[in-house]
Amino acid sequence: MELNDLISRTGEWLRGTGPSSGAVMSTRVRLARNFIQVPFPNRASKKHLQGILDSVEKAIKKIDHFKNSTVFRMNELDDVDKEFLVERHLMSHEHASNAEGKAVIVSAEEVLSVMVNEEDHLRIQVMNSGLNLFEAWKIISAIDDRLSEELHFAFSPAWGYLTACPTNTGTAMRGSVMLHLPALVMTKQINKVLTAIAKLNFASRGFYGEGTQAIGNFYQISNQGSLGHSEEDILQNINGLIRQVIEQEEQARQALVVQNRPLLEDKIFRSLGILKNAHIMSSQEAVELLSMIRLGAELNILTRLNVQILNELMIMIQPAHLQKIDGNKLSPAARDIKRANLIRNKLGEVS
Amino acid sequence: MELNDLISRTGEWLRGTGPSSGAVMSTRVRLARNFIQVPFPNRASKKHLQGILDSVEKAIKKIDHFKNSTVFRMNELDDVDKEFLVERHLMSHEHASNAEGKAVIVSAEEVLSVMVNEEDHLRIQVMNSGLNLFEAWKIISAIDDRLSEELHFAFSPAWGYLTACPTNTGTAMRGSVMLHLPALVMTKQINKVLTAIAKLNFASRGFYGEGTQAIGNFYQISNQGSLGHSEEDILQNINGLIRQVIEQEEQARQALVVQNRPLLEDKIFRSLGILKNAHIMSSQEAVELLSMIRLGAELNILTRLNVQILNELMIMIQPAHLQKIDGNKLSPAARDIKRANLIRNKLGEVS
Repeated sequence: MELNDLISRTGEWLRGTGPSSGAVMSTRVRLARNFIQVPFPNRASKKHLQGILDSVEKAIKKIDHFKNSTVFRMNELDDVDKEFLVERHLMSHEHASNAEGKAVIVSAEEVLSVMVNEEDHLRIQVMNSGLNLFEAWKIISAIDDRLSEELHFAFSPAWGYLTACPTNTGTAMRGSVMLHLPALVMTKQINKVLTAIAKLNFASRGFYGEGTQAIGNFYQISNQGSLGHSEEDILQNINGLIRQVIEQEEQARQALVVQNRPLLEDKIFRSLGILKNAHIMSSQEAVELLSMIRLGAELNILTRLNVQILNELMIMIQPAHLQKIDGNKLSPAARDIKRANLIRNKLGEVS
Repeated sequence: MELNDLISRTGEWLRGTGPSSGAVMSTRVRLARNFIQVPFPNRASKKHLQGILDSVEKAIKKIDHFKNSTVFRMNELDDVDKEFLVERHLMSHEHASNAEGKAVIVSAEEVLSVMVNEEDHLRIQVMNSGLNLFEAWKIISAIDDRLSEELHFAFSPAWGYLTACPTNTGTAMRGSVMLHLPALVMTKQINKVLTAIAKLNFASRGFYGEGTQAIGNFYQISNQGSLGHSEEDILQNINGLIRQVIEQEEQARQALVVQNRPLLEDKIFRSLGILKNAHIMSSQEAVELLSMIRLGAELNILTRLNVQILNELMIMIQPAHLQKIDGNKLSPAARDIKRANLIRNKLGEVS
């Protein structure tokens, strides 16, 4: 698989299916792992970093889960390529800078990706569609078991897995769920919910990851602590919390429908009308309008919309994707035109 | 013809055809006439007012131009009916209050209408589509000739036709043209143009007549003075002025197309998208969006739009029209829903 092959593909996590997919876009579980007796990447020499990458590449050849996966080495990619992988949620923004010994390994369906030599030697991630923490855990746990047979990971019986940042030490696991909460936003309950989440020691982020603001009513909720509990306990806790948030979102949606259906329909159909007709569109506006028609689809107000296409658009309207699709470098103004064009075409097909 | 028959009809002046119809919606010429030796309506007794109405009704029976016309007597109409006639530009807002002896006579195609006992005993109006001052004058002049044979109008060799308000004395004629000037508005040249028009002693008003603000980039321009010049001279002057304004509007449109076509297309298509999808819409927003898609049609950016339908919508989206179409009294909130519904249906047929 080449990087350009990804352009026309859709990651499994964007299918728009799976449990609670009305309010949950996707689930992600990641593990941090480090080699024993090798400095963490920020302290490692070039030779160390290259040695780690070589060991990982050798190991994954022996593991079935990586059968159709591809290794993208950072020093072989240009800036747009790297940004493209970030936009697909396959690697972090930080991983794109300082290419030395860095790579990302991506499976065919983009369920699995492994960053090599990011903050930790390995950051293993499994993503899938809907609220699917335990399924994701099952997959990533099996991969971790196989990797542990091939590689020697730093593990302390007292502390658990050792990591570059102490906040990750222990299970070194983070489970996160991408929620679509338009009704909690529209009914102005979202801040109350986010405050409760923070008090329970969970983190909330925007659609585009750490350090990004909530946009298009998407909130990514994940555990903060990874020490002192088993992986299963942590996932149970997240799952319980997410179920409560979904319940509140559902109630807020019903309240909106009952209290002022015409206003809701107006907002949703106007969003569709603008998306299907605009000739210039910023990504911020696009995501906000896509959120509204997604709500329309989830409430069966827009019956012909396919959530998978909305998910794909969330990814495709980003700068690097627009440039990869076009095959050329594009200025921000040119991207706003290209973005509107792409949305018109995609939505014209289905609604 | 009954008043309800008008609901599904389109006045000739809304056809969207005729000279310079790209920037000119319609032309109107009106004459004020008063009976000799009868007090003006504001001083007249009930008996006088009734006598005038009787005389007019008798006279028009003998005149071919009134063959298929209908007399609507104010005291036989309810408030919505009266507002409905105002919205169709067939009579003034003032004519709807204090019904005593008042009537409006409307020809089948709504080319001709006559208010009886408004400010003057007779206010005769001819409207047609496009820039058509001389054609309108020909028609109204012939009607005036025939009415003058049947009725005795107050005329002074020194002053001309006598009228209740001295500003109308003389020809007692007003010619006015409804212009659509979106490009002059968008390029911020409109105030300069309106200032020049005022200096030349012409009046500019909004779409909905005297005392209304410009809305949807429509400007109704008419002569102020009617004394000291012949009707033909006055109309020549208006016509010359209008031709200059049209020329400036055309130049501004070309500049917009050349300088930033994508932005213009974006504005136009977004307007279409909102009109075709909104479920709640105020009349102000509707008129503004209709103005933008009208510009799109006039610039051949929207090729399937029919200007007649846009003209009809300008009339139909008004409160009394919405209520007549619905057959019920509607609250403002209910009208906003009905309006959006009507626009969706009308535009869904043609684009």
